[in-house]
Amino acid sequence: MKKKTGSSLSRKRVLITGGLGFIGSSLARRLVDLDNEVILLDSLLPDGGGNLFNISGIENRVQIHRETMKNEEMVRKLVKDVEIVFNLAGQTSHLGSMQDSKADFEANTFNQLGFLQICRELNPKIKIIFTSTRQVYGHPHYLPVDELHPVSPVDYNGISKLAGELYHTVCGRIYGLHTTCLRLTNCYGPRMRVKDAKQSFIGWWLRQAIEGKKIPVFGNGNQIRDFNHVDDVVDALILCADNPSARGQTYNLGGESVALKDLAQLIVDVAGSGSWELVTFPPERKKIDIGDYQGDYKKIRESLGWQPRVSLSTGILETLDFLRLHQGEYW
Amino acid sequence: MKKKTGSSLSRKRVLITGGLGFIGSSLARRLVDLDNEVILLDSLLPDGGGNLFNISGIENRVQIHRETMKNEEMVRKLVKDVEIVFNLAGQTSHLGSMQDSKADFEANTFNQLGFLQICRELNPKIKIIFTSTRQVYGHPHYLPVDELHPVSPVDYNGISKLAGELYHTVCGRIYGLHTTCLRLTNCYGPRMRVKDAKQSFIGWWLRQAIEGKKIPVFGNGNQIRDFNHVDDVVDALILCADNPSARGQTYNLGGESVALKDLAQLIVDVAGSGSWELVTFPPERKKIDIGDYQGDYKKIRESLGWQPRVSLSTGILETLDFLRLHQGEYW
Repeated sequence: MKKKTGSSLSRKRVLITGGLGFIGSSLARRLVDLDNEVILLDSLLPDGGGNLFNISGIENRVQIHRETMKNEEMVRKLVKDVEIVFNLAGQTSHLGSMQDSKADFEANTFNQLGFLQICRELNPKIKIIFTSTRQVYGHPHYLPVDELHPVSPVDYNGISKLAGELYHTVCGRIYGLHTTCLRLTNCYGPRMRVKDAKQSFIGWWLRQAIEGKKIPVFGNGNQIRDFNHVDDVVDALILCADNPSARGQTYNLGGESVALKDLAQLIVDVAGSGSWELVTFPPERKKIDIGDYQGDYKKIRESLGWQPRVSLSTGILETLDFLRLHQGEYW
Repeated sequence: MKKKTGSSLSRKRVLITGGLGFIGSSLARRLVDLDNEVILLDSLLPDGGGNLFNISGIENRVQIHRETMKNEEMVRKLVKDVEIVFNLAGQTSHLGSMQDSKADFEANTFNQLGFLQICRELNPKIKIIFTSTRQVYGHPHYLPVDELHPVSPVDYNGISKLAGELYHTVCGRIYGLHTTCLRLTNCYGPRMRVKDAKQSFIGWWLRQAIEGKKIPVFGNGNQIRDFNHVDDVVDALILCADNPSARGQTYNLGGESVALKDLAQLIVDVAGSGSWELVTFPPERKKIDIGDYQGDYKKIRESLGWQPRVSLSTGILETLDFLRLHQGEYW
């Protein structure tokens, strides 16, 4: 499934914040293969996506620092001599953001502001690729949602991520830092967190299917979402770091879109186990639900040549295989 | 200049955060006249707009707490038995936000989040009127700017205020708090801070004219801005607290718009002293300048019947008279 895209991203010293997480570790694997010196910063918070098993096989080819971005001394040490930062660390749970809003805010906004100040001070030529989220848009006014769509988050996580993203953009515009922001949509693939449904419902669904259980589909199941395989997200991250025209830009990602009940059926079909059922929308989730969403990724396609390559059915099969094989490491 | 608008806002227990500031104290005066019990919370930070002289004449008719919103114990005490909060406290300097971004962020976002949590916990029926800023829009894509215009702040202050505003909106939508957000444009009038140009250029210009000095107009002076007299802003605040249809809404204010060089000329003409000159845009200000701005206030006009009443020339005359009379209290 790994695709080398003829990248010039080689022999660089690269920092990945959130580097032991699902996307961070997938990126680390690619960067190590491309012969980069890869440094991972990850706090391995119990509710986060960090997992040491994610780097199994490359553990001796990366440098690992188990620390939060709050640790200013550590960040200063790491930032000062890297060329590129993939700034992926953050709190990603929508529901979690409502339950512990200050922690969400600290992780996604305050720590990011501090991080940017340190970059400005110690390494103003650093390239920073920041992962934001489609959650910043809130309820779409139109589909597919392009980058000009107004932002209007419906939950605290959308606010904290939006503020973190805007700090990157403004810091780039005013202080000349090289920053690029990627607004990710639902991402899935090997090494995703499936311990519970906090970070991603698709991971939870995959696990239910593996365990022969019922996938709970909220509401009428007609809600549209789009999905990116993690390999496609890694492609996008690398293109952003590689291509000078990404500087100062904010890009949507986007992928195959599907109604949630059809996704549940696809998972059950591919897994050959499990089933799905419609369940009442839990009120605390209904309140922060965004309705249908589909991202318009024309801008990054035209600017950087990115497009998703992994089909949902192929990606789901691969992910199920991975999770079945390494079940004990993920739940 | 004071206008009583037949408000039902009477005999209420009301908290004003930032209550010793320019707008807060003007609002306090009106509320005291309307026979409300008025509590002021203000940290009187040296760089803020708070000034004890602002409440001269009503000091015995208000309760004053010199504290920041960070003081959770104090906030808990004050919030638990008031009916309405006019939540005006914040850091308003654009340039200041770039110089001490963490302080800006703490005042405008973090403290607001904490404040909202306390309201939810102790007084979920409280009405909160929050003052945001047109700075959230950044460079206008079109004029006049209505509330549907995308938000895209150009400086840290715009980000921190936007996040603070969004926390109010989301908290209202999800937890049922009664919140209303007002996006203010340039506000001027008696009691404004004129110590320096940090908070408001118009205050600084008025002082230059009084002192017979040259008003520095940046660039070519053709930049459009719109202005509201503080009495009109107070009207809007009271209408928002008074009218149930304001619940959950975000409204622009807006007023007479004028090119900055024409404003400078108007000030000189009305003052009968001073002069103005075009000066090179200071680079640190140019970077965060938003170009032309004019707010569209149709939504609040149609929804609450608000419109600005004080003309710029009348308002400037009144402000100059006030500042001349009380010069020693303001610089």
